[in-house]
Amino acid sequence: MARRLIVIGGDAAGMTAASQARRRRGPDELEIVAFERGHYTSYSACGIPYWISSVVSDPEQLIARDPETFRRQFHVDVRLRHEVTAIDLDRREVVARDLEGGGEVRERFDSLMYATGATPIKPDWARTDVRGVFGVQTLDDGAALREWLDAAPKPRSAVVVGGGYIGVEMAEAILRRGLSVTLIERAEQPMSTVDADMAELVSDAMHSLGMQIRTGLSVTGLEERDGRVSAVVTTEEPVPADVVVLGLGVRPNVGLAEAAGLPIGPSGAIRTDRRMRVPGVEGVWAAGDCVESLHRVSGMPVHIPLGTYANKQGRVAGINIGGGYATFPGVIGTSVTKVCDLEVGRTGLRERDAVASGFEFVSVIAQSTSRAGYFPGSRPMAVKLIAEKPSGRLLGAQIVGWSEAAKRIDALAVALWNEMTVDDMTALDLGYAPPFSPVWDPVLIAARKAVDALGASSG
Amino acid sequence: MARRLIVIGGDAAGMTAASQARRRRGPDELEIVAFERGHYTSYSACGIPYWISSVVSDPEQLIARDPETFRRQFHVDVRLRHEVTAIDLDRREVVARDLEGGGEVRERFDSLMYATGATPIKPDWARTDVRGVFGVQTLDDGAALREWLDAAPKPRSAVVVGGGYIGVEMAEAILRRGLSVTLIERAEQPMSTVDADMAELVSDAMHSLGMQIRTGLSVTGLEERDGRVSAVVTTEEPVPADVVVLGLGVRPNVGLAEAAGLPIGPSGAIRTDRRMRVPGVEGVWAAGDCVESLHRVSGMPVHIPLGTYANKQGRVAGINIGGGYATFPGVIGTSVTKVCDLEVGRTGLRERDAVASGFEFVSVIAQSTSRAGYFPGSRPMAVKLIAEKPSGRLLGAQIVGWSEAAKRIDALAVALWNEMTVDDMTALDLGYAPPFSPVWDPVLIAARKAVDALGASSG
Repeated sequence: MARRLIVIGGDAAGMTAASQARRRRGPDELEIVAFERGHYTSYSACGIPYWISSVVSDPEQLIARDPETFRRQFHVDVRLRHEVTAIDLDRREVVARDLEGGGEVRERFDSLMYATGATPIKPDWARTDVRGVFGVQTLDDGAALREWLDAAPKPRSAVVVGGGYIGVEMAEAILRRGLSVTLIERAEQPMSTVDADMAELVSDAMHSLGMQIRTGLSVTGLEERDGRVSAVVTTEEPVPADVVVLGLGVRPNVGLAEAAGLPIGPSGAIRTDRRMRVPGVEGVWAAGDCVESLHRVSGMPVHIPLGTYANKQGRVAGINIGGGYATFPGVIGTSVTKVCDLEVGRTGLRERDAVASGFEFVSVIAQSTSRAGYFPGSRPMAVKLIAEKPSGRLLGAQIVGWSEAAKRIDALAVALWNEMTVDDMTALDLGYAPPFSPVWDPVLIAARKAVDALGASSG
Repeated sequence: MARRLIVIGGDAAGMTAASQARRRRGPDELEIVAFERGHYTSYSACGIPYWISSVVSDPEQLIARDPETFRRQFHVDVRLRHEVTAIDLDRREVVARDLEGGGEVRERFDSLMYATGATPIKPDWARTDVRGVFGVQTLDDGAALREWLDAAPKPRSAVVVGGGYIGVEMAEAILRRGLSVTLIERAEQPMSTVDADMAELVSDAMHSLGMQIRTGLSVTGLEERDGRVSAVVTTEEPVPADVVVLGLGVRPNVGLAEAAGLPIGPSGAIRTDRRMRVPGVEGVWAAGDCVESLHRVSGMPVHIPLGTYANKQGRVAGINIGGGYATFPGVIGTSVTKVCDLEVGRTGLRERDAVASGFEFVSVIAQSTSRAGYFPGSRPMAVKLIAEKPSGRLLGAQIVGWSEAAKRIDALAVALWNEMTVDDMTALDLGYAPPFSPVWDPVLIAARKAVDALGASSG
C-alpha cells in the first residue's frame, strides 16, 4: 500500500515539498494530499504590492503553479478552501474543515508536512467590525484590498501602518493608484530593514514621491463611519484614512502545531532540525514562514519569513520525505527592495542586531557610485559594512543606491556566508568596466574603510 | 638624507604605489620620482572605447589624478614624456630619455617601482609605414585614433582585428561614430572571454547592431593607398578598411626588466612575490599589466592585464614600500563588459582553461530571467557554471543577459574565491524581490543544475 503524505498549506514551502517528494516517489509509492484554506496554490506573495499598483495586471501571473497542474502533473490531491483544524499525532490523522461545502474530513498520514505560513500582525486596535483594514500576506488578502480600492465609494486616502519593506512597498503601490498615502512608523525612520543612517535616503525618496511620512507616532485606534474606516487615531492627532494597510510584520501560524504539541522555538516559530524535521516527532516536517531558522552570523534561531527560505526549505523537506538527503544550513537575512528608483539591499546583522547578539564591532559607510564617475548614468551608492572587532569578520552589510544597486548585496552575502574578514575582502576580484562600477568597486572601497576603522579602533 | 623611490610608468599601478608610499612616508623621509613616457598619469584605459564613441566627451574625465595633483598633493616629482631606457641594478640608477627636450638623465634609487604596463600586440603584417592602424591601450593611443577618425579624408569603413572584449568594445564604439565596421576573429566566435556557447548571444547582438562579423578568418596583410591603409588582406578576400584597430590583446612591457636581469615568469610577465617584490633583487617592486599573478583556481601564474589588478597591486606595493605590510593574494579573472544592452560577465576558468589546467569537470547552462518572469522588464539571462568532478568545487562561471546581468558575476566570483562547491551554493542566501530576480535566483538555479549534472556523471 502506498504511504501517504499530508501537506498543510498549499503555498511555496508546502507545494515545493510535495513536488520534490513526488520526483523521488511515484503515485504508487506515495499518495500526497494537500490542504489549502485559500483559493490559490504556490504564488508569489512578494508580487502582491505590484499587483496592487497594477504594475502586474493579472493575479494569475503571480501563480507559479495552479492546483490543476499539481493534480495532473504531480498527482497531488489538492484541496482548496480546506482548513486543517487539528492534528492527531497518536492516530496520525488530520482533521480538515471544508470552508465552502461545509463538513469535516479526517485523513490519515504517514508523513506530515506543516507549512501553514504566517499571518499579518493585527494589533488590538484593528477591530474586525470596521471594514477597510487589510493585512497583505496572501493572494486572498490582495484580492480583498484591490476590491476595496476599486469599489464605490472609492477610497482617496490611505494610511500604511509600519515602515518595514512590506509597508514601504505597499505605500508606493497605493500611491501609484492615485490615493494620498501617509506612512506611520513608530521608530525614527521607515525602512527599518536597514539602519537609520542608511534608511534616511529611503525617507527622502518617499517624500519626493509625494508620500507623507510620520515617524515616532503610534496608531492607537480607528475612527469609522457606517462601519467603514475613516481615520486612524494616533498618539498625536487622527490621520484620515479610507483604507488602512497593516505593514507590521507577520506572526508564524503555529496554533495547530502548539495544540498538537509540536516544539515551538524561542523565536515563536516551529523548531526543526537541518533536514526540516520537527525534532522528537516521527515523520513530521515543517518549512516556510511558520518555522524558525538558524542565523548563521549570530548563531541564534530567528523567524525571518521570506519566500526564498520557504522555497529552499520546502525543497529540502521534500527531498528528505522522498527518501533523499538534503539539509538547510540556515540564513543570513539577505533582502532587497526598491522605492521608486531607490534600491535597498541588506544582509546579515544590522547594528541593533549586532548589539543584541553581543558583538563588538565597527561600522562604516562608503559613498561611491554605480558606474565610473565619468560614465553617463553614474548614480550615488552607499555601502555600509559592520565588522566584528577585533577579528574583522563581516557581520552585516547594507546598500542603498539609485540604480543597479540592490543586487550587489549578493556579493556581500556570499562573503558573509563564507565568514570573510573585511581585510580578506579588500582583495576580492570583482567585475569592473566603466558602465558597471568605478575601478575600485563600492564594495571594495567599503571594505578598505572598514579595515581602517578596525585599525583606528585597536590603535 | 631622504631615501628615494623611482617609479617607472605613471599609470594606475605606478601612481597608486607612489601615493600609498607617500601616505606612510613624508617628503623628508622619501623622495619620489615618477617617469612616464606618455602625456598623462593615472587614467582609465578601460574608458577609452567610451571616449572613442563619444559616450564620454572629454579625455580629461578619464584621468583620475593629473600630474599637477601628484606634484602638489603627493610631492611626487612627475616627469612626463620621459622614457626610462635602462636600469642599472649595480649602481642602483635608472637612465631616462627626455622624449621632447632631448637628452638623458640618470637618477639613483633606493627603491624601484616597475610599472611599465603592456602594449597592444602588433602582428608582423601591421607595418609601421602604413598609417591608419591603431592599438588602443593608452590615452595617447586613443587620441591618435580619434584624430584619425576626425581628420579629412574621413574614414568610412573600419576593421577591428580580434574579438576579445577590447575588440568588441572598440567595434561598437566605432560603429556608434557612423562607420561601417567589420570584426575579424580567427576563432569560431568573438567574445572569447566566455565559452563559445555563451558567446553566441554576443555575436547575435553585434549582428543586430549592424556589425559585420567574420570568424575563422585571419588577417595576413594590409593594402594601402598613398601610405594610408585601404584594406586588410585575409586568408579569404580582402576587407576594405580606412582604419584598422588591433584588438589582439597586449604584451607585458618587460624589455627593460629583461635587460636588467629581472626574473620573467612562464607567462612572459615579471615575477613577483605576494608583497609585489621582484624576488632575488633588493628593493625592486613591480605591479600592473607588466607582472604575472597567481590564478587562485588553477594555481598557475597568469598574465591578465586588468585595471583592477593594477590598482590593487600598486596599493600593495606602495604600502610595503612605505614600510607597511600588505599582500596580493592572486586573481580569479573576473571581468564584465557590454555590447549594446547585452551584458557579459565571467570569473574563473573557461572550459578551455579548465582543460588546459587538467581539471575534470561538468558544465551546465541555466536559462533564467533578470526579474520575476511576470515582472515588467524581465529579460533572459543565461548562467553557466563549470564545476570540478567529483568534488563539485566551482571552477568558473559566466553570465550573459540583456539587462542587470553582468555584475551578478560578483556573487559567483566571491563563491569561487572561497572555493565553494556547487552543492554549498544551492543554499546561498541571495536577495530576492520581484523587480530583481525570480524567487530562485538564476545563480541558484544554475548551482542546482550543476549538482544534478555531477550526480548524473558519477552515477
